[in-house]
Amino acid sequence: MLDLTANDLAAVNDVILRRMDSPVGRIPELAGHLVSSGGKRLRPMLTLASARLCNYEGKQHVLLAACVEFIHTATLLHDDVVDDSVLRRGSPTANALWGNQSSVLVGDFLFSRAFQLMVEVGSLKMLGILSEAAARIAEGEVLQLLTTNDTGTTEDAYLDVIMAKTAPLFAAACRVGAVMAGRSREEEDALTSYGRNLGIAFQLVDDVLDYSAREATLGKTIGDDFREGKITLPVVLAYRRGSDSERAFWHRTLAEGAQEDADLAQALTLLQRHGALADTLERARHYGAIARDALAIFPNSKAKDALLGVIDFCIERGH
Amino acid sequence: MLDLTANDLAAVNDVILRRMDSPVGRIPELAGHLVSSGGKRLRPMLTLASARLCNYEGKQHVLLAACVEFIHTATLLHDDVVDDSVLRRGSPTANALWGNQSSVLVGDFLFSRAFQLMVEVGSLKMLGILSEAAARIAEGEVLQLLTTNDTGTTEDAYLDVIMAKTAPLFAAACRVGAVMAGRSREEEDALTSYGRNLGIAFQLVDDVLDYSAREATLGKTIGDDFREGKITLPVVLAYRRGSDSERAFWHRTLAEGAQEDADLAQALTLLQRHGALADTLERARHYGAIARDALAIFPNSKAKDALLGVIDFCIERGH
Repeated sequence: MLDLTANDLAAVNDVILRRMDSPVGRIPELAGHLVSSGGKRLRPMLTLASARLCNYEGKQHVLLAACVEFIHTATLLHDDVVDDSVLRRGSPTANALWGNQSSVLVGDFLFSRAFQLMVEVGSLKMLGILSEAAARIAEGEVLQLLTTNDTGTTEDAYLDVIMAKTAPLFAAACRVGAVMAGRSREEEDALTSYGRNLGIAFQLVDDVLDYSAREATLGKTIGDDFREGKITLPVVLAYRRGSDSERAFWHRTLAEGAQEDADLAQALTLLQRHGALADTLERARHYGAIARDALAIFPNSKAKDALLGVIDFCIERGH
Repeated sequence: MLDLTANDLAAVNDVILRRMDSPVGRIPELAGHLVSSGGKRLRPMLTLASARLCNYEGKQHVLLAACVEFIHTATLLHDDVVDDSVLRRGSPTANALWGNQSSVLVGDFLFSRAFQLMVEVGSLKMLGILSEAAARIAEGEVLQLLTTNDTGTTEDAYLDVIMAKTAPLFAAACRVGAVMAGRSREEEDALTSYGRNLGIAFQLVDDVLDYSAREATLGKTIGDDFREGKITLPVVLAYRRGSDSERAFWHRTLAEGAQEDADLAQALTLLQRHGALADTLERARHYGAIARDALAIFPNSKAKDALLGVIDFCIERGH
């Protein structure tokens, strides 16, 4: 994937740097911090590889990939404000460095810039796809807010959250590849399905990593979700499989937010006891398999191999 | 103005209510609070009246006016978070009722919805105008953040702030009226100039009202700007015209934020002593006069009278 998209990705980075510029110095300063702080650029890579899969020959894929990354970056800025996060990928978050106020406003700026870029691309269909994704993401984030601290969240309700907050941008990032190449509705739907299911798998693995990754590799503070009272699938499973006293533990720590130093270790013990992390990875594998089959209608190519490789990469991160 | 746009405005309100709906109940609940809490709908009225001025016969003006109001509402939601405001138009702000997190996310949702509406209208030119306005507003808000607490802000620097944060949406709201009617560049520019200068006048009067209006009429907490350390034109003038000890007062209260109970009264005394409120209104009148002349190329009509009346209304508010 990295090899396939390296040249295009350099062009995307160039567009990003030029378009986040502003006479108001705080904007490129803050945006640059996030853009340069080691993000994987997974979503724009998906746009580039999807365009390649569809033998797209033009130049719009670079602008659209930059749009996708702008929308993602704006979302991250607002997310970190909403979650009051202090670390992202091992670096202090923008809100920790410049305050919530700047993060909210620079997020708005990047979001607007994304739409300006789409206007340049000149396709109302793409604008429709990406503006719908953006609205869905905001809905999903609000939904997540409402499930926070609710230990009674079901697996279905949790899936609703990530199908809204994470999957739409993955799906849109891939779908626009087919749209810009003028491919059939069938191929458009196939790439949408690939992206949506990959996004779900990605989020589930991310939820596992929040309880299992070493801080150095993930660049995230372990236990963030736990401290913020976020109900993710590992917790949903452990809660439902647990004893009354275990449920009381989850209720005290996540619903009431009454946490003590040893609680994270106890949470990890309970997650292990019920196989909640391993089973969340199994669920992720299920969505990864759907994503894989969605691409079956495309003939073999380097781009297809790269997109299939992303599924494996996303799931391997969990081990 | 109200008579001219009454029917269309009812249709706009209908679009707003339908399009802010979402399966996530918190979204219509929070958005509805703001939308129904007595906003003047000034910006969408400008779109409707501008379309009428240009003899526009279609139906896009209703959707575009709703877009303009959605962008404005999203901006207000984020503004109140950034300013930590608790009252707007006499009602508790959304962030005071539902928290900053929901306000940030519902703002993002409304912003995305605005772009979805624009996609339905199907004009890339309008999308370009409104996305550029949105980016400029965000720039202006960041710029304002950076001048907050800076008592050395010059009148020019302050004008830069409001030309970025307030004027662009007024200008875009009017400009799209000419664009949808397919009018000449000259007429488009005239409505843009009208909107921009009206926006500047409107903001300057708003700044005056923050120090002079009765709470009941304005529905704002008097002295909000003062308490938040915002440097607005009345303060810029009083600071520059003041004695050393007066400047020390402004510096303590606004730059250092060390305020005591009697300070707002003292601020009002200093503003009066230097004629800062009256002279800010004079400046507003200047921009109102430019807005008036910008419309000179249009023949007389009810719509023109209404747009000219808005200038007077905006400035009369200050007395």
